[in-house]
Amino acid sequence: MTQAPVQHPSVAFAKGHGTGNDFVLLADPEGAAPLDADAVRALADRRFGIGGDGVIRAVRAGSTGDAALDAAAPGTWAMDYWNADGSVSEMCGNGVRVFVRYLLEEGLASLADGEVLEIVTRAGIKRVERRGPLLSADLGPFELGGDRLVAAHGLDVARPGLDVSTGNPHVVVALAGDDELDGLDLHAAPALDPVAADGANVEFAVPGLIADGVGAIRMRVHERGVGETLSCGTGAVAAAMAVRHWSGGAADRWIVDVPGGRLEVEVDERGHAWLTGPAEIVARGAATVAPRH
Amino acid sequence: MTQAPVQHPSVAFAKGHGTGNDFVLLADPEGAAPLDADAVRALADRRFGIGGDGVIRAVRAGSTGDAALDAAAPGTWAMDYWNADGSVSEMCGNGVRVFVRYLLEEGLASLADGEVLEIVTRAGIKRVERRGPLLSADLGPFELGGDRLVAAHGLDVARPGLDVSTGNPHVVVALAGDDELDGLDLHAAPALDPVAADGANVEFAVPGLIADGVGAIRMRVHERGVGETLSCGTGAVAAAMAVRHWSGGAADRWIVDVPGGRLEVEVDERGHAWLTGPAEIVARGAATVAPRH
Repeated sequence: MTQAPVQHPSVAFAKGHGTGNDFVLLADPEGAAPLDADAVRALADRRFGIGGDGVIRAVRAGSTGDAALDAAAPGTWAMDYWNADGSVSEMCGNGVRVFVRYLLEEGLASLADGEVLEIVTRAGIKRVERRGPLLSADLGPFELGGDRLVAAHGLDVARPGLDVSTGNPHVVVALAGDDELDGLDLHAAPALDPVAADGANVEFAVPGLIADGVGAIRMRVHERGVGETLSCGTGAVAAAMAVRHWSGGAADRWIVDVPGGRLEVEVDERGHAWLTGPAEIVARGAATVAPRH
Repeated sequence: MTQAPVQHPSVAFAKGHGTGNDFVLLADPEGAAPLDADAVRALADRRFGIGGDGVIRAVRAGSTGDAALDAAAPGTWAMDYWNADGSVSEMCGNGVRVFVRYLLEEGLASLADGEVLEIVTRAGIKRVERRGPLLSADLGPFELGGDRLVAAHGLDVARPGLDVSTGNPHVVVALAGDDELDGLDLHAAPALDPVAADGANVEFAVPGLIADGVGAIRMRVHERGVGETLSCGTGAVAAAMAVRHWSGGAADRWIVDVPGGRLEVEVDERGHAWLTGPAEIVARGAATVAPRH
């Protein structure tokens, strides 16, 4: 217990979030400092590190060290996204919006109101548009599937849910009102019948008013492998598109209130879903990366 | 959704931890920037802010704005400690050690190996000693009390527990081995019989070997009002002093392994318990304080 303290290298970081989905962000334009699972876990650890749902490295296509991220015009910003557990991930709807906010605040990119920036991710090129203080991401096409029954603590009986794929799998359940939504206990994963082979995120949505072509939804989400979260970007898209389907296509714009704030989902003429909402950088500084052993 | 982004003032911060008990630290020597509950909650929020178990302001006695903290020689460093929920707290055994590490790393104090620094807290003057790379805090006298039964998920029957007061109330339960300790489910608060009027922290401890005057303990803790935590400084003291009592005073030094790392508890000639362990600053930077409404 008398050894000298170990000196660890320091890394410049920012912390940001989109409706409570939070990330540690690092700039590595030249691809000089690739991430590894130990470093990601250390940075994302909420008590021993900075803390976040994920860690995102900003790197230029052509020098990422990852074939999928290099598959874009040289110089395109690539989002090297890692989950807090040290695994890599293809895409994150809130993550790509916070990523662009980071590029803007660091002066690594500029974007006038209404302009679009292309970002390369492991799920291909994604477009992010600036809309006033908000950022909007094109999450691509979605697909409605079949029905399955969903049981959850706090619901009297199993309810019908609609499969929605947004690249990752969702099941959306409509509830009758706020009391039912607030009464849900999502500590345990909802039970699906039939079972989803690869698991699924489950969204519980209370449809609200539709006025002037804009619908409203309140929702909560249980993310597969994670538990209940404050926000899930693709989950907001899935919920909006399921309620849109049930409404007979009554609106193409949907305000989606999640526990972490307000998102908006819009379908464009190509059938792509855009996710719009706040994306904020709340801190920047220097961190000592010290993986736990 | 088109209003201009609100500009919030920026505040210099550090994040540090002692065996996983983590804190946001701010320097305010002149007492120019008192904390309030909203700012504390915003900083301590793990998803919308920096995140921590508490927020600690470093301020000089005489300009703290708090009579208890001003009750020391002018210039003494005062630990203005707040819980993550926005309430003020008197003391924290890991917090005061991380606080002193912060003062040292910021150049606000200096401390040679073996030297003691006096810190004023709402629970009076506390002494912190540098021991090589570790920091040791005098947590003062402790008091053994009576027995009560403790029931917890994962235990076959209720077990006898010993009341220990370290300024705050604890009940310590001895378990037979690692299997019992690892098998505990501490999601729910243990049940005490008789009930503790103000609640109590409950420590489950597995006594290990005693050799060369040093005992070993493995423990887990359920903190009242919080749940299971990675570490509790006064809980480590309580567990060590209970096991010392049961051993007939076989040792005055105890190595205490908590889920977040290793602490040491030692009784001095005055009957004070010293808590020793790592205290690290893992990041520093500037944060945007934006209370949620």
